[in-house]
Amino acid sequence: MKSRDDCVRLDAADPLASFRTEFDLPDGVIYLDGNSLGAMPKRAVEIASRVLEKEWSAQLIRSWNSAGWFQMPRALGDKLAPLVGAGPGEVVVNDTTSANLFKVLAAALTLRPERRVIVSERDNFPTDLYVVQGLTRLLGRGHRLMLVDRDDLASAIDQDTAVLLLTHVNYRSGAMHDMAELTRLAHERGALAIWDLAHSAGAVPVALNAANADFAVGCTYKYLNGGPGAPAYVYVAKRWQQAAEQPLAGWWGHAAPFDFSPDYVPAPDIARYLCGTQPILSLAVAEAGLDLALKADMRQIRAKSVALCELFIALVEEQCAGLGLELASPRRSEERGSQVSFSHPQGYAAMQALIASNVIGDYRDPGLMRFGFAPLYVRYVDLWDAVAALKQILAGRLWDRPEYRQRQAVT
Amino acid sequence: MKSRDDCVRLDAADPLASFRTEFDLPDGVIYLDGNSLGAMPKRAVEIASRVLEKEWSAQLIRSWNSAGWFQMPRALGDKLAPLVGAGPGEVVVNDTTSANLFKVLAAALTLRPERRVIVSERDNFPTDLYVVQGLTRLLGRGHRLMLVDRDDLASAIDQDTAVLLLTHVNYRSGAMHDMAELTRLAHERGALAIWDLAHSAGAVPVALNAANADFAVGCTYKYLNGGPGAPAYVYVAKRWQQAAEQPLAGWWGHAAPFDFSPDYVPAPDIARYLCGTQPILSLAVAEAGLDLALKADMRQIRAKSVALCELFIALVEEQCAGLGLELASPRRSEERGSQVSFSHPQGYAAMQALIASNVIGDYRDPGLMRFGFAPLYVRYVDLWDAVAALKQILAGRLWDRPEYRQRQAVT
Repeated sequence: MKSRDDCVRLDAADPLASFRTEFDLPDGVIYLDGNSLGAMPKRAVEIASRVLEKEWSAQLIRSWNSAGWFQMPRALGDKLAPLVGAGPGEVVVNDTTSANLFKVLAAALTLRPERRVIVSERDNFPTDLYVVQGLTRLLGRGHRLMLVDRDDLASAIDQDTAVLLLTHVNYRSGAMHDMAELTRLAHERGALAIWDLAHSAGAVPVALNAANADFAVGCTYKYLNGGPGAPAYVYVAKRWQQAAEQPLAGWWGHAAPFDFSPDYVPAPDIARYLCGTQPILSLAVAEAGLDLALKADMRQIRAKSVALCELFIALVEEQCAGLGLELASPRRSEERGSQVSFSHPQGYAAMQALIASNVIGDYRDPGLMRFGFAPLYVRYVDLWDAVAALKQILAGRLWDRPEYRQRQAVT
Repeated sequence: MKSRDDCVRLDAADPLASFRTEFDLPDGVIYLDGNSLGAMPKRAVEIASRVLEKEWSAQLIRSWNSAGWFQMPRALGDKLAPLVGAGPGEVVVNDTTSANLFKVLAAALTLRPERRVIVSERDNFPTDLYVVQGLTRLLGRGHRLMLVDRDDLASAIDQDTAVLLLTHVNYRSGAMHDMAELTRLAHERGALAIWDLAHSAGAVPVALNAANADFAVGCTYKYLNGGPGAPAYVYVAKRWQQAAEQPLAGWWGHAAPFDFSPDYVPAPDIARYLCGTQPILSLAVAEAGLDLALKADMRQIRAKSVALCELFIALVEEQCAGLGLELASPRRSEERGSQVSFSHPQGYAAMQALIASNVIGDYRDPGLMRFGFAPLYVRYVDLWDAVAALKQILAGRLWDRPEYRQRQAVT
């Protein structure tokens, strides 16, 4: 259907093409794993140097005021808010996605004290399910995590459902939920909706307030390019902020942290979702990625993301026909985030071989080769070259080599 | 009693003197606030640059394996362990002190299910008290936080006490508890002991295992010089690691995180005190401070710390006699950490004036001027000069100037 030159022409016409120069990408590598760890914005180096040499080293303790360290979780939250369809004062950046989920789930359960069921998807990212298990076990009040298949979600929500907890874009398949419709359904049946945006923010349009979402969490190190393990964020709709408390009551969430009063009084706003002192260096560096996402037009990001996914599916199905790959993501763009997965009986070893040839995707059991497309730095021509490499590996049965079959600690 | 030249001679004879060159300290500043935020080790810049440019940027997702990112909380925990008298596999570095306290307090309460009282000190660092309030409110099982004065601790621990929760060195006064004796007393009465080491680790000898402590938490950004808000640590004695679970059940604490199983199975060891993905840049940089603390001899650190505190008290009481200062720290070294506080009716403004003259300490209500002495980079001559500046401010009543009286957000 297309040639490599067609891909070069698509890149030349790409309105987002210039963003690639804002990232420091290694030569010769095709990076299709931005859904796991985003690439490094060049400005990250400049920010880290400022925090270390101008703030920590030179101003020492004074930087808590003078460099705005103490305000950073709120300031970055306000910055991130438009990327997820939230307003000012509805988001703070701090802690991890898991800890933030613990906070909002605990708050949500206190808002639905008569209900005992948390509905989620069997194939949700496991840490979200673990957090439910950890909290409900601690509470010991008979709460139950009900895991159902995607298609059974709507019928699973009933008058016992306290919370519908879903990841907007599935980490394996890239399948995307209809946030507005599922939230509406949850509300109609008296439940609250918590959304995990880990695989959404920065890659697909998210409209939390328009969808009338109650709570959300997410990470900054995937499509938001915040850096490895950069602090996560938590969203609480304005209407719930004073109605509930979260249990990780640390001094940063206190109404007056520097009064050093022995009694906890939660901040009257989103700041009550803060807890302890935050890792300033990682937090500060995350701003570089947020700024790039804000500079880009989300409609252009989504349009390019869809085009990249469609091109990749078409190229794989054309070039690798008969080589054992099967599409494991929704075929319709409306139902898909910014990643495409193909299953292959030798998926693990095939992915290792692909990585060895400098095309970086990743692998998830069972058999899924995952490819993420970060529209700010992935080019159309990268996909052409990636599929050519994939074809060579599969046609040459390179997955059979022992060096590609050995599992690593983190895959 | 002494002259400035005597101080210079003490510095020349200081076996730890060479450590100061390992830190990047601003010219002309006397830094006596390392008990709040430690100074920057020069190697921090090198580590940050490695993580950004060689690991994140160049190796991208592969660094989770190749750069040891995923193992870092455990590796740094093992490194930190000897600094607090713990063994390998008893400490992990992750999250915040508050979140870690939430974890160990929840675990400890499940080990004492029949008891309902948590005993602590009225003047404990507030966030520790907030965490107790947040957890017990969530549990809703009638747990009670009993706050008593220091001298009443021993008599407060009884057969209702589940946990004795104390900060080893008090953040206001620097008063240090006898960890072994109070832990023994708690155990004798059937309670467990949780120690917060925020103001201890790196400054005073800590012997968790020798004291038979049960749990401990602490931060790396004070005397361990890990950087602003660097991740905290959590210690669990080997004997309790499999006996209890902690409720912040995230995938990093799972026995097999990369199996992506929907059911939470806690790791069989200290790793179950991990939760979510950690901020790698802040975590990696913290290693510079740990390495310096490990290189130093703790007996020399303690000897110098005691000498600095004694010199400071003597100089202040001699040079600033009649200027309104009153010692607010224990006079006996055995009962004191590495800081000295003096109260003054105009303490806040006097401290602002002192900071304006480039002698950095800090202030805590009511009226406390706090001075911390980090033995790895504070010199004897610094104390001479600091006291001279303090005398000038107090004698000249500089605290009366309006610019010093205005409160800042973070003090």
